[in-house]
Amino acid sequence: MVYKQLVECVPNFSEGRDQEVIEAIVDVFRGKKGLKMLDYSNDEDHNRMVVSLVGEPGAIKEAVIAAVGIALEKIDLRQHQGQHPRMGAVDVIPLIPIRNITVEETVALSRDLAQEIYENYGMPSFLYEKSATAPHREDLGRLRKGQFEGMAEKIKDEAFRPDYGTELHPTGGIVAIGCRMPLIAFNVNLDTPSFEVANKIAHNVRNLSGGLRFVKAIGIALRDRGISQVSMNLTDYTKTPLYRALELIRVEARRYGVTVVGSEIVGLVPMDALIHSAEYYMGLEDFCVDQVLEKRLME
Amino acid sequence: MVYKQLVECVPNFSEGRDQEVIEAIVDVFRGKKGLKMLDYSNDEDHNRMVVSLVGEPGAIKEAVIAAVGIALEKIDLRQHQGQHPRMGAVDVIPLIPIRNITVEETVALSRDLAQEIYENYGMPSFLYEKSATAPHREDLGRLRKGQFEGMAEKIKDEAFRPDYGTELHPTGGIVAIGCRMPLIAFNVNLDTPSFEVANKIAHNVRNLSGGLRFVKAIGIALRDRGISQVSMNLTDYTKTPLYRALELIRVEARRYGVTVVGSEIVGLVPMDALIHSAEYYMGLEDFCVDQVLEKRLME
Repeated sequence: MVYKQLVECVPNFSEGRDQEVIEAIVDVFRGKKGLKMLDYSNDEDHNRMVVSLVGEPGAIKEAVIAAVGIALEKIDLRQHQGQHPRMGAVDVIPLIPIRNITVEETVALSRDLAQEIYENYGMPSFLYEKSATAPHREDLGRLRKGQFEGMAEKIKDEAFRPDYGTELHPTGGIVAIGCRMPLIAFNVNLDTPSFEVANKIAHNVRNLSGGLRFVKAIGIALRDRGISQVSMNLTDYTKTPLYRALELIRVEARRYGVTVVGSEIVGLVPMDALIHSAEYYMGLEDFCVDQVLEKRLME
Repeated sequence: MVYKQLVECVPNFSEGRDQEVIEAIVDVFRGKKGLKMLDYSNDEDHNRMVVSLVGEPGAIKEAVIAAVGIALEKIDLRQHQGQHPRMGAVDVIPLIPIRNITVEETVALSRDLAQEIYENYGMPSFLYEKSATAPHREDLGRLRKGQFEGMAEKIKDEAFRPDYGTELHPTGGIVAIGCRMPLIAFNVNLDTPSFEVANKIAHNVRNLSGGLRFVKAIGIALRDRGISQVSMNLTDYTKTPLYRALELIRVEARRYGVTVVGSEIVGLVPMDALIHSAEYYMGLEDFCVDQVLEKRLME
């Protein structure tokens, strides 16, 4: 039996105001065989649109290439203003392995996509995250620093030479393309109004300051409720599961006499992420995700 | 958008020895549009075969009717011997709502199926479980008591008159058809070798003796490991979730100074059942299963 491969793709386009341009781009993704548009949303302040797609690798590649063509035709970054940093008319194209596809295969897909975008439109690209060709090129923020306006100069530096192409696209700039794991926005609520305490706990659990490898975290106050929150992004739940982040926060909170009062997941979460935590808390022995009925249905 | 409805169907046939008959029956389910055979397994001692199907209601109905035709042609219950109690050549046809289908719609499907089986083959049926027409007719064991040999007499009793038909099929007997929830086989391990302690705990958590409504439980010894186990069937996980059974066992175990050391799920489990427990243990606020990526993919 051949299992259908599925990837998620979340391209970010640098247009969040002009409905005609927005519609022209998302229209490419409608009614396409082998893919599904889960969502799209534009932000006028950011002047940016995020599209969420899921589908077979080939169908995703073909549709994204077509949409990049529209974006390059309709968006001129020389005229673009918005609060969100950006370096390309299509700014970033993350590819996320969802089902029956490995990280390696998804990296290969990101390379194919980058090459075809360069061949079709002369738009250069950086490979980022798990597709990056060097550790200093993994982080999107670091690649994008200087933005469109500073990019012509930046890519002359050996360290930031594009992976595909050698010069900026005159109106479209440069795009980051790469395989990343699904992000999970996971927040844990604490029975203290103190933002400072939440921030100290966030500090102790995040990768940056010696905590868990795939956790980014900050402390915030939820003033309406008189409590505070450790707000996290889990960047690879297969290696740093939800329960581990939650239980470590509980441990760190103890020294402040603070208790965890709840948690929340914002947006989408892969089924496996919740199942791994159920397994932990229930002490399930020898459980295999293939026992989940829905896994069998999706083969 | 119209969501595709899915039901599971687990028909039990009274033939577990003759490979030719077994193959003739399962062959009906192969390569059919709109359904998938997940599994089939026969047991020679029981002289019985269980088939596990999932698919669209119409496709399931049509294929099951065809398979019942083959079974009635090939199986003669007057000659049938086996350890498992049985009253029909096809003995029971459980229908289980899986996705985008209500219990009421699944009950309606069971009635259609029962009617068509009677019209096509003259095989009578009892509606059981959630399809039952009276409380004393819910339990399969109670309906089947007396088995094929005693059934002609039994159905003369007003209380056990068939829902469809009035007389037994001469060689095929009678079949129970009904909607039931997915069964979850969930076992909890205890750090005591004492089967008696496990059994006392099982007694306290099961519906029969004053425990949880949708729990059936017995205590068993796992002699190899020197521990014991509360072995459960959860008959409606949407009303009695896994975590509640587990935590109640923990509470009851305390009085014997016994600790839960693990648990196991045998066979298939619906995704929701694990997610509900993850929500409980993680204290997730305002979580909606539509946030699960795979739910979105299955629409």
